[in-house]
Amino acid sequence: MAQIAKGLEGVVVADTALSHIDGERGRLIYCGYDIGDLAAHATFEEVAYLLWHGHLPNRAELAEFTGEMARYRTLPPAVVEVIRVLPDSAEPLEVLRTAVSAFAAALDFKGHPSVTHAMALTGSMPSIMATFDRLRRGLPPVPPRADLSHASNYLYMLTGEVPSEQRARALETYLVLTADHGLNASTFTARVIASTLSDMGSAIVGAIGALKGPLHGGAPALVLDMLRAIGKPENAEAWLKAVLDRGERIMGFGHRVYRTEDPRARVLRALAERTSEIEFFKLALHVEDVALRLLHERKPERRIYTNVEFYSAAVLHGVGLPDDLFTPTFAISRVAGWTAHVIEQLKDNRLIRPDAEYVGPMNLTFVPLDQR
Amino acid sequence: MAQIAKGLEGVVVADTALSHIDGERGRLIYCGYDIGDLAAHATFEEVAYLLWHGHLPNRAELAEFTGEMARYRTLPPAVVEVIRVLPDSAEPLEVLRTAVSAFAAALDFKGHPSVTHAMALTGSMPSIMATFDRLRRGLPPVPPRADLSHASNYLYMLTGEVPSEQRARALETYLVLTADHGLNASTFTARVIASTLSDMGSAIVGAIGALKGPLHGGAPALVLDMLRAIGKPENAEAWLKAVLDRGERIMGFGHRVYRTEDPRARVLRALAERTSEIEFFKLALHVEDVALRLLHERKPERRIYTNVEFYSAAVLHGVGLPDDLFTPTFAISRVAGWTAHVIEQLKDNRLIRPDAEYVGPMNLTFVPLDQR
Repeated sequence: MAQIAKGLEGVVVADTALSHIDGERGRLIYCGYDIGDLAAHATFEEVAYLLWHGHLPNRAELAEFTGEMARYRTLPPAVVEVIRVLPDSAEPLEVLRTAVSAFAAALDFKGHPSVTHAMALTGSMPSIMATFDRLRRGLPPVPPRADLSHASNYLYMLTGEVPSEQRARALETYLVLTADHGLNASTFTARVIASTLSDMGSAIVGAIGALKGPLHGGAPALVLDMLRAIGKPENAEAWLKAVLDRGERIMGFGHRVYRTEDPRARVLRALAERTSEIEFFKLALHVEDVALRLLHERKPERRIYTNVEFYSAAVLHGVGLPDDLFTPTFAISRVAGWTAHVIEQLKDNRLIRPDAEYVGPMNLTFVPLDQR
Repeated sequence: MAQIAKGLEGVVVADTALSHIDGERGRLIYCGYDIGDLAAHATFEEVAYLLWHGHLPNRAELAEFTGEMARYRTLPPAVVEVIRVLPDSAEPLEVLRTAVSAFAAALDFKGHPSVTHAMALTGSMPSIMATFDRLRRGLPPVPPRADLSHASNYLYMLTGEVPSEQRARALETYLVLTADHGLNASTFTARVIASTLSDMGSAIVGAIGALKGPLHGGAPALVLDMLRAIGKPENAEAWLKAVLDRGERIMGFGHRVYRTEDPRARVLRALAERTSEIEFFKLALHVEDVALRLLHERKPERRIYTNVEFYSAAVLHGVGLPDDLFTPTFAISRVAGWTAHVIEQLKDNRLIRPDAEYVGPMNLTFVPLDQR
């Protein structure tokens, strides 16, 4: 009678026209377009528009949309205050979760989640993280510039300097690559919250909380830690063998869905070559080679490939982001997909409410405190 | 191959030893104890302990536990500041969502969600809502008192006066009745977030966001609006008929799970009789009678009964809560269940990650902007 599916693997809870993962062929599609095509040609703004409207914008649509989204780069003073009063010990994703919640409250989003809400949240999140990073370094926040692209303005607000075209485009390509990816745990969280007819802010705050978990979005910086610990190519083999001998995982390899190379990993590798220092890139390439060989030797029956995290770390490091902003920057990208999924969920909504099976005791009798 | 279950109805995603709903017989069980038994005899603190530990505390355990949880009634200054800087237009649940996120960030909860985290969040939420309510009324926050019960201290921090035993117990009974209820949408949200190995704060912030949706926790105050609009018993029949003629729902009736009277409604009705003004209670009783008769006449094939919302409104109004704190007070109760489910999820965790079916276009070719 009841279906039992603890992890909900293989249970289809939604139709989506947003993204398609073909794990066997190693393909990722957003609204009909191959991720390789989008990574090569599209801006992040075009991809966000595509996800929210289902088609690419023409020139007039893009100009209007870009201007409107850029207006949300200026944070309401209450949000800056919230960032300011949180203690220094707070993790960046905790700050993002809290500040996004405050932002949604301050903007007084009422009613049905809309593309306006999606633009507001997507437009503001780089400002939130840049403001946080400036304040913790004892520096004044940098006011946003509306004439810069989404990616370029993020780097500008972090550093106070307009980044090179190449750096901005490298970050933008990362944002394009990671903007959506089917019903991962954070996207599913956003859809569950939205299915109660709650507001866009609540759905996105919940999704940020899910992304915070290391089983989902929480560990790209660990790849960097690993590369730093290995230090130089000739150490890789011994270091990685020791990891496997201890029964631990090598960071940056394997994916639940892909049974061949993750198409995003391929793009990111090429990008890492252009953004990283040459010695660092050579190290990453060598570690990748050795890791794939060792993994294949130890588990020849499993098809394990480089995942999106491995070269994300090199790219985000290469464009100058601090390690602990890697996962928040993933959120800055994925919010485009989260908000698109919320809007899609509400087109044909049904409350998402599974069952649990009770396995506890029955028919106990309450005993008053003085007789326990 | 794939199972398709859009609302996940009837799909079992977890075993639970926390609560059991027997919708046919109208029974609700927490950890083996009938809700009627607990409502009559247990304190909220005992119920929270029961949900977190699986057994009722003895006298020494309860004393230690109560003292420890009461310590979290004093909010970190950063949390008070966050409440203070949010604009007056923010809804109470938006304030709760933001302040709980800030609280979790300020307390620096690292690692595995624990009973300590559960106590901290449960202990602090009444203080957050009372502080918010005082500040919006231009009044100074009232410092908590550790010698009062959880329920009594909440009313004390709202008003500055120690409530009567009867009022405090009425609120406490409400908190006992609504502390857990299987895998509702907010509890499921908390478990999905926890399944990524994220922190307790993220799970609870997400759950608050789900509770904000009117399909889930968002509408007990509407019952009060209805009773006020009806005004006196003789208006009930015409007013309710008009609602049904317009094809609208009567607030406070029907439940997805119960096929007989919700056992909580029965307790709340008796409680409403003791806490409401007599005229108001008579009105509620009459509206209930007429509504049940009309619903039965119009849909004789459906078994529709009074749900938990109907008399919750009368009880929460009767103990002196402002209408817009009804749903936040539901959160103040349910956080005991949410946190218990997070702890339970992690005992035998598996990432909760369903699938979506892609129904969008394929094989589109990116056209440059100047050719669109």
